[in-house]
Amino acid sequence: MRLSKAFYRTLKEIPKDAQISSHRLMFRAGMIQQLSSGIYSYLPLALRSIRKIEKIIREELGARGYEEILMPAVIPANLWQETDRWNLYGDLLLRFKDRKGNDYCMGPTHEEVITDVVRRDLRSWRQLPIYLYQIQGKFRDEFRPRFGLMRGREFIMKDAYSFDVDEESAKLSYRRMYEAYTAIFSRCGIRTRAVDATTGDIGGELSHEFQVLASSGEDTLLICDNCDYAANFEKAEMSELPVAVGALKPLEVVATPGRKSIEEVSSFLGFPPECFLKCLIYEADSRPIAVLIPGNRSVNEAKLRTVLGAGELRLASDSIVEESVGTQPGYVGPVGLPEDISLLGDYSVQKGINWICGANRDDMHNLNVNLGRDFEVHNLADIIFTAAGDLCPKCHEGRLEENRGIEVGQVFYLGDKYSKLMNCAFLDEKGDSQLAQMGCYGIGIGRTLAATVEQNHDEYGIIWPVPLAPWELVILPLQPNDSSLLEAAESIYNGLGEAGIEVVIDDRGERAGFKFKDADLIGYPIQVILGLRSVSAGMAEVKFRANGERVEMALNEVVDNLSAWILDRRHGEITR
Amino acid sequence: MRLSKAFYRTLKEIPKDAQISSHRLMFRAGMIQQLSSGIYSYLPLALRSIRKIEKIIREELGARGYEEILMPAVIPANLWQETDRWNLYGDLLLRFKDRKGNDYCMGPTHEEVITDVVRRDLRSWRQLPIYLYQIQGKFRDEFRPRFGLMRGREFIMKDAYSFDVDEESAKLSYRRMYEAYTAIFSRCGIRTRAVDATTGDIGGELSHEFQVLASSGEDTLLICDNCDYAANFEKAEMSELPVAVGALKPLEVVATPGRKSIEEVSSFLGFPPECFLKCLIYEADSRPIAVLIPGNRSVNEAKLRTVLGAGELRLASDSIVEESVGTQPGYVGPVGLPEDISLLGDYSVQKGINWICGANRDDMHNLNVNLGRDFEVHNLADIIFTAAGDLCPKCHEGRLEENRGIEVGQVFYLGDKYSKLMNCAFLDEKGDSQLAQMGCYGIGIGRTLAATVEQNHDEYGIIWPVPLAPWELVILPLQPNDSSLLEAAESIYNGLGEAGIEVVIDDRGERAGFKFKDADLIGYPIQVILGLRSVSAGMAEVKFRANGERVEMALNEVVDNLSAWILDRRHGEITR
Repeated sequence: MRLSKAFYRTLKEIPKDAQISSHRLMFRAGMIQQLSSGIYSYLPLALRSIRKIEKIIREELGARGYEEILMPAVIPANLWQETDRWNLYGDLLLRFKDRKGNDYCMGPTHEEVITDVVRRDLRSWRQLPIYLYQIQGKFRDEFRPRFGLMRGREFIMKDAYSFDVDEESAKLSYRRMYEAYTAIFSRCGIRTRAVDATTGDIGGELSHEFQVLASSGEDTLLICDNCDYAANFEKAEMSELPVAVGALKPLEVVATPGRKSIEEVSSFLGFPPECFLKCLIYEADSRPIAVLIPGNRSVNEAKLRTVLGAGELRLASDSIVEESVGTQPGYVGPVGLPEDISLLGDYSVQKGINWICGANRDDMHNLNVNLGRDFEVHNLADIIFTAAGDLCPKCHEGRLEENRGIEVGQVFYLGDKYSKLMNCAFLDEKGDSQLAQMGCYGIGIGRTLAATVEQNHDEYGIIWPVPLAPWELVILPLQPNDSSLLEAAESIYNGLGEAGIEVVIDDRGERAGFKFKDADLIGYPIQVILGLRSVSAGMAEVKFRANGERVEMALNEVVDNLSAWILDRRHGEITR
Repeated sequence: MRLSKAFYRTLKEIPKDAQISSHRLMFRAGMIQQLSSGIYSYLPLALRSIRKIEKIIREELGARGYEEILMPAVIPANLWQETDRWNLYGDLLLRFKDRKGNDYCMGPTHEEVITDVVRRDLRSWRQLPIYLYQIQGKFRDEFRPRFGLMRGREFIMKDAYSFDVDEESAKLSYRRMYEAYTAIFSRCGIRTRAVDATTGDIGGELSHEFQVLASSGEDTLLICDNCDYAANFEKAEMSELPVAVGALKPLEVVATPGRKSIEEVSSFLGFPPECFLKCLIYEADSRPIAVLIPGNRSVNEAKLRTVLGAGELRLASDSIVEESVGTQPGYVGPVGLPEDISLLGDYSVQKGINWICGANRDDMHNLNVNLGRDFEVHNLADIIFTAAGDLCPKCHEGRLEENRGIEVGQVFYLGDKYSKLMNCAFLDEKGDSQLAQMGCYGIGIGRTLAATVEQNHDEYGIIWPVPLAPWELVILPLQPNDSSLLEAAESIYNGLGEAGIEVVIDDRGERAGFKFKDADLIGYPIQVILGLRSVSAGMAEVKFRANGERVEMALNEVVDNLSAWILDRRHGEITR
């Protein structure tokens, strides 16, 4: 492509709301334009990269027996009412009426539609497994769209779905997609990590997120420094702690006037926070429940919700605490708690001894509180956030390290969640009706692009991994009016084009400095710089964007050398 | 692909609302599923064909300097308010509010968005021409969606846009796209015809439709049997008629009691309809106007609207006619018409003599009415529908023939219609601000697919042109449990696959008759039929779907012969 003929302009200004590098750089490189909050146009450079991600996805899914379909973006309410997500999905679901007053929504995800597509044709176990996917524009009416393509409202997504005869086959299908995702992101040339994840709005019991590792990521990942364990910190399990050894001391009551928070009591009494037990009152579906965790930990409400099987869950207000326990929140403790309040302890509660807790009287704490002797719990479970430094719950040897990540894909084992609600059934070998066991699998394609930029950039611009670069190489003739230089540029341009390289020539009448800045900003993996002096000596200067390396190269070797370099890298590599 | 592994099932039943062949066949072949009125899922077979159309479009537009972008499907109201189409577009435009109460619509076309995209970056004449296109799901809230993909609400469209420095360049861009469309439809292997067209909702002054010729088409086309003139009958011009020669007879008044219509007066007086002048009273922007046309013709209101420059146009009610002329509608005529009613005649009025018309008195007609002697008109223009049998307006030698067509693409020269309303301007060579001159160009991709089926089918099913076939060839092993037969089938399957042919093997445990019917229905261009008897003799039977021809072919020649046959036809041909 000749830049003089392209619809293309880089910008110096940065939109006010562009808080992260990928948003700033993609805007400045002329890749995206915002049309409305969270709604973007993809200009030619962005779309070229997006098409490359799509092609990789199509190849990897096709190789695993997936067929592509295309479902509507506009979905009638009745399907979403079958699963009750019409009500449960909240304001993220953009609902509207057509001219005849019928209810529709913009599809934010397509579990209902695919289940309907398949149930219409599904009759026999012989038809299974069914593997389908689509690549489509979707819409989620985010309350606060932000970070450019990272959290937009209209976005491009690949969503795939599997239907199997039983749980065992469905889990094989899940595993197969996990492997497809690993291959896809490797081929994109980006560093990703699969982590255990929670299932959120989609539901189901097993899920992994594929996270692009980047310091600006919104998600916190805990990764073992010894084995392959990795999890979103929301999901990370606690390793079993060693049981504390020592003599149980006698229970005491001490005055802690006006000290309510762990920090205040800890400094007042001179014990570190890990010696304390926090006793928090929650309302789970309007029923008060006491939750007991170590003083240096936080409640993981996702875990807590799962353990309680609760729909609505929130910390009780001060007045509810005082009414039900008879003391202010900071002084609540497990000893002498009213019997109608159920008490749930974290596993760690039974591993420690001689805890310090609130005494259920204002301005008073208990010392040397011990489970079994001084109080009982109704249940023990893993309900706290795992943190960096904790022992790995898998190998029990390594320590967990904290990383930042950007979720670009997620795989879910759904079981019969949707097939049951929507009666997606088939006759098995014995002629009995069975529900299809499902999995669903998403990749945010625009998000993958933005995360790639987030992971691969410097102060000057984007540094594209070769597989996703909108163009692989740029030729910069510094004096484009000089005929010998132009001839050299055209010869390289044509040679690389014939070798199948995606090459751009910056033939605009701009200054050299301007062209260099543009080339760095757009992030072509290679720049071939042609100046009068070097060309007259039969040489070109070649700059590799990733490491900034510059080499002199004979003009007649440029095409062979650089096309070999690019072809070597075009298909990505495992960069985990 | 192995059919045993595919998500695929043909159906015998036909949806009640499937009135046309393409809808029935695409449904029965398992290509599409209706999710809601006018909203369809594209299943694997349909999507494969659609992707082929898209690929042809991308190649032909890319070769002509067009770059692909992707604009949002959800468009904020303010852009559509700039051109007032927010109000003018009517109920076809699906409008809704987001969670914050802001107004949006689903984009049915993207002139506003592209003009905004370009005006943000356009500065100088040096950037022009700008050629952009996108392929996208769009939405039009049709009052009566019908005919499957032919008139859906959600549909896939290619829309391209050109921006030029002046009218001359813009018309060259228009011509370039006209040629691209000719190439695209030729490569699809379908018979299309470009015809002069009206501009409708989009506006502008010059437009051609690309029509797939098919007897079931909704559009009437008039095509010269002598030259290359072709037009939608709504747009077709009249050829100049020869002037009638003869003596002007004296004006007479005759009684025609109770005879009001041309048919009644014609049979009562014994003159054919072409001897009459119809005088119709219209209201153009609430102003009454009399329109005079031959008795055997109809008013073309699109032409009339253009001649009058009228916004709203309708036939006046009986009461308005009686009030303004003083007689009932059937007796209105040009002689003695009240002077405050402007009289517009079709060109043909001045070519004839001794006309018969209403006498502006109830139950009375005039004989031998002549322009110039008995009445004057304020203006003459082409305001009637051209019809089959008329002289060609271009070569004046051929006669126009009527054909039926399905519009699959349309090109519009827009001029500055949008750039003026939205101030899409640039500085010219002299430094003066100029408006960009635009063109816009659409192809309905799902509609092209349906029209292809409409043009290419028989009572047994679809007959795909090779370039758009979802799969190019099917192998039908009739006894798939026989090992020698299976071996022959696999060998041909692998050989064709290696030759790059898109091949399906029907390895399902179904009866031969079932497989034959499926293969005919789906319309693979070639069927390779492997039965025990022929295979044991080293032969296969090959059936060509298009003409039903069956040939015996040596098993070891099948791969070479058939891959050559397919490769010859894969890239389409000019079939105009």
